[in-house]
Amino acid sequence: MSVLQEISSNVKNMKTLEYSLLARWTKQIKEDLRQGVKKPFREVIDVSWGDPHRGGVKPLTFVRQVLAACLYPQLMNGEKLPVDVRQRAQKLLDGCAGWSRLVFSKCSFSLGSYSATGGLPEIVQRVSEFISRRDGGVPSNPENIFLCCGSQWALTRILNVLVNAEAPFPTGVLTPAPCYSTTPLSIEGLGGVVIPYYLSEERGWELQVEELHRALESCKGACHPIALYVINPGNPAGQVQSRKSMQEVIRFASEKRLFLLADEVYQGCVYGETEFVSYKRVLSEMGPPLSDTVELASFHSASKGFMGECGLRGGYVELVNLDPAVKKYIYTLFCADSSPPVLGQIALDLMTNPPQPGDPSYLLYYQETQHIRSTVVKNVKKACEVINSLQGFSCQAVEGGAFAFPRIHLPAKAIQKAKEAGMQPDTFYCLRLLEEAGVLASPGSDYGQEEGTFHIRFCILLPHDVLGELLQRLSDFHTQFMKDFS
Amino acid sequence: MSVLQEISSNVKNMKTLEYSLLARWTKQIKEDLRQGVKKPFREVIDVSWGDPHRGGVKPLTFVRQVLAACLYPQLMNGEKLPVDVRQRAQKLLDGCAGWSRLVFSKCSFSLGSYSATGGLPEIVQRVSEFISRRDGGVPSNPENIFLCCGSQWALTRILNVLVNAEAPFPTGVLTPAPCYSTTPLSIEGLGGVVIPYYLSEERGWELQVEELHRALESCKGACHPIALYVINPGNPAGQVQSRKSMQEVIRFASEKRLFLLADEVYQGCVYGETEFVSYKRVLSEMGPPLSDTVELASFHSASKGFMGECGLRGGYVELVNLDPAVKKYIYTLFCADSSPPVLGQIALDLMTNPPQPGDPSYLLYYQETQHIRSTVVKNVKKACEVINSLQGFSCQAVEGGAFAFPRIHLPAKAIQKAKEAGMQPDTFYCLRLLEEAGVLASPGSDYGQEEGTFHIRFCILLPHDVLGELLQRLSDFHTQFMKDFS
Ligand SMILES: Cc1ncc(COP(=O)(O)O)c(C=O)c1O
Ligand SMILES: Cc1ncc(COP(=O)(O)O)c(C=O)c1O
Repeated sequence: MSVLQEISSNVKNMKTLEYSLLARWTKQIKEDLRQGVKKPFREVIDVSWGDPHRGGVKPLTFVRQVLAACLYPQLMNGEKLPVDVRQRAQKLLDGCAGWSRLVFSKCSFSLGSYSATGGLPEIVQRVSEFISRRDGGVPSNPENIFLCCGSQWALTRILNVLVNAEAPFPTGVLTPAPCYSTTPLSIEGLGGVVIPYYLSEERGWELQVEELHRALESCKGACHPIALYVINPGNPAGQVQSRKSMQEVIRFASEKRLFLLADEVYQGCVYGETEFVSYKRVLSEMGPPLSDTVELASFHSASKGFMGECGLRGGYVELVNLDPAVKKYIYTLFCADSSPPVLGQIALDLMTNPPQPGDPSYLLYYQETQHIRSTVVKNVKKACEVINSLQGFSCQAVEGGAFAFPRIHLPAKAIQKAKEAGMQPDTFYCLRLLEEAGVLASPGSDYGQEEGTFHIRFCILLPHDVLGELLQRLSDFHTQFMKDFS
Repeated sequence: MSVLQEISSNVKNMKTLEYSLLARWTKQIKEDLRQGVKKPFREVIDVSWGDPHRGGVKPLTFVRQVLAACLYPQLMNGEKLPVDVRQRAQKLLDGCAGWSRLVFSKCSFSLGSYSATGGLPEIVQRVSEFISRRDGGVPSNPENIFLCCGSQWALTRILNVLVNAEAPFPTGVLTPAPCYSTTPLSIEGLGGVVIPYYLSEERGWELQVEELHRALESCKGACHPIALYVINPGNPAGQVQSRKSMQEVIRFASEKRLFLLADEVYQGCVYGETEFVSYKRVLSEMGPPLSDTVELASFHSASKGFMGECGLRGGYVELVNLDPAVKKYIYTLFCADSSPPVLGQIALDLMTNPPQPGDPSYLLYYQETQHIRSTVVKNVKKACEVINSLQGFSCQAVEGGAFAFPRIHLPAKAIQKAKEAGMQPDTFYCLRLLEEAGVLASPGSDYGQEEGTFHIRFCILLPHDVLGELLQRLSDFHTQFMKDFS
């Protein structure tokens, strides 16, 4: 028996995602394929992650050149790399720790050094300038920005400060449904309570303030609500919030004294009519007293957007209107993990400060990012068309983010069959899709959905031919599935 | 006022390190120097971190070449890079997510993809083979190994599982004094209690099992001790534990039902007579029932050793004899931060599987690592000589790790002066050292020390000329300081 007779019940209560069953199954199928076992497909298409490179999107040349030159500065000798690449790499290296030429004979700056806990000051500064440009001049103070090992890391640490496991009432966090699955896990793992508010699927996954009121009422007496988590653009739902809706949310947060957690990692991925506006900007535009009082943490990441460097783990959080005491606690927790990966920080620098017209790398950078953008726009259109043309399948417009989240109208027989197998109906669907068509998508039940509705999620940040193959397999499977169970 | 009327008291209780005062002061001094303010020195020598590159140690060529080639695969075309570098990079890339050539026309593996939560399976496998080789054949199961964003990250998450904040008695963790400062911070931040056990300075910072008994007795009734944390080789004390001492520790842990947390990140940095042996190996050699029952987590890192790639954030933890339920909770917590940085994982692969005799990169790799090793051996000898030759200063032999931790025998007047300034006496010493000699070392009071003793800690993983300059400044300062306060 373990020395741990009593595991903290918070940790014990963390639920296992349906997805983990699918992931195990995928491993087995891949192993079978490797061993030559015959299947109806030669390779599994894994579209269960929001991970552009995994799907085949190519890394941006400028980004990789600068990173390589920082790692291996010999590459800066000679003319192989464009001059702006070499200059940027040198500038970034000079911001790392090491000796200057002042005392010792050789420079030795290296990105192998730990950075400060909140990131390299020069990069933090440039990120803050980006934020201010993005927000039409709303000031951004570098002291409120912390670079981190991916945005999820920062969100978990901040939840750690917000959630008070010792309090008589558990801490509640209003959380969208459907919602990116990791955040609810973190809330529960820390001893908090997820208070779901449902996005309105019929209205394009709109966030409706009446629903926030309902959700808050529903948990009265059961927990102490302290924060409101929003994802914009949405994951998995792909909606982009309007300014008006954001204003309502801000007023609601202020009235109910809720800390706003704005997950804005998909801000660079917007394809529809609605423009992305940051919560910080809308808050600032609303003026005092709101703009001076509503506490806000806004997250962004080098994983998302067209850069898609998930593996480098670079994110940031900007804190707005925080009580200095609370900010200090957050900082102390950040310190416990020492410093964020330096290459991830550099990726953030490049994402927030890409090549400009006239720079030698500009043209290629522009072409590459435009190619990704136009591919995704094409993908979104195609995916919605195909899905909406199928019986028992429907998809709201995807306005942003990395995913489509169509609804499957499962026949009663399929639901019955799933029950018999002890599975959620959409997990059952995904498992069949995986086995029969070699497509790994994830089930809506991992994200939260209205009772009796079922969905699947798949990534649309893909090369167009990969998406084509995916839709082909999905359509054939779906048509057969509906036939089998009708 | 913040929405957070009550911050979790754990987080609120985390103490601020003395070091933070020194760090702020350093920033000011650097700014002054930049603005041309005259000081007795032209640059601050910062030896307060265990960060080789910061101190001027050069990155290993092989490591940087492979990393650069993985990031920017065009570098693999042509003959610029040695063939073993290109082969290794290709092999590592093939282990990343992306498409193979099976379905689509082009390969697209990219380290820009998220890896599995525990790391890329191929690298985990090679790390497990390294562990087994290191331990003279003791088997290592890849399923017990998790790659992570630096070893500290993994330690914090495991503490999170061990420390039960809701239990009627707080959870206690036996922790060495002196101890690397981050771990006690994490324990307290999670609501646990640090139970210090003192290493015996006179006996070369030996860990004595009677002291473990004393420490455990001392906390009876005040907390529920659940784990024993050891650092070997030591930080800050620089001792290397003997096999016999480790056997005693293991028996103690078994008897008292304590979870063993073995921080072995300095295993590659050993300079004295005592060889490094891992806790896992000693445990296995002791045979059943101990070898089947004592729960152990062993940590290692690409930050430490002669590779010194702190900025990449690559570490691993191996779990031994864990209850599968506990292992599952740990894994679930790991999942909440998604995946570790891929470049840090690659650094671990290279650290655990360096070039072999006959490989094109072997000679240079060997020369570079040997150069670092012989420099550090020289440094350690020189530092101890110089310090022990000074009045009121003494240093135990440094057998391993990255630091010297000499004792300063402060005159009563200096202690009095420090009290008046509201400072710990060794912080007072460090502050003067910084102001007058431009050397940033850290005070013993951040690490825990026997009542009435004072120490400073500085890094010795430095180029020899930097160490020379450091010792010169330190000697001159110390001599003057002792004169001023005697
Ligand atoms: C909404 C949302 N937030 C955060 C993240 C995590 O991103 P990062 O890689 O920066 O941790 C994701 C990743 O999928 C996401 O979808
Ligand atoms: C004893 C000890 N453990 C762990 C760490 C953290 O190492 P990492 O960079 O792998 O998080 C350090 C860093 O100084 C250390 O000294």
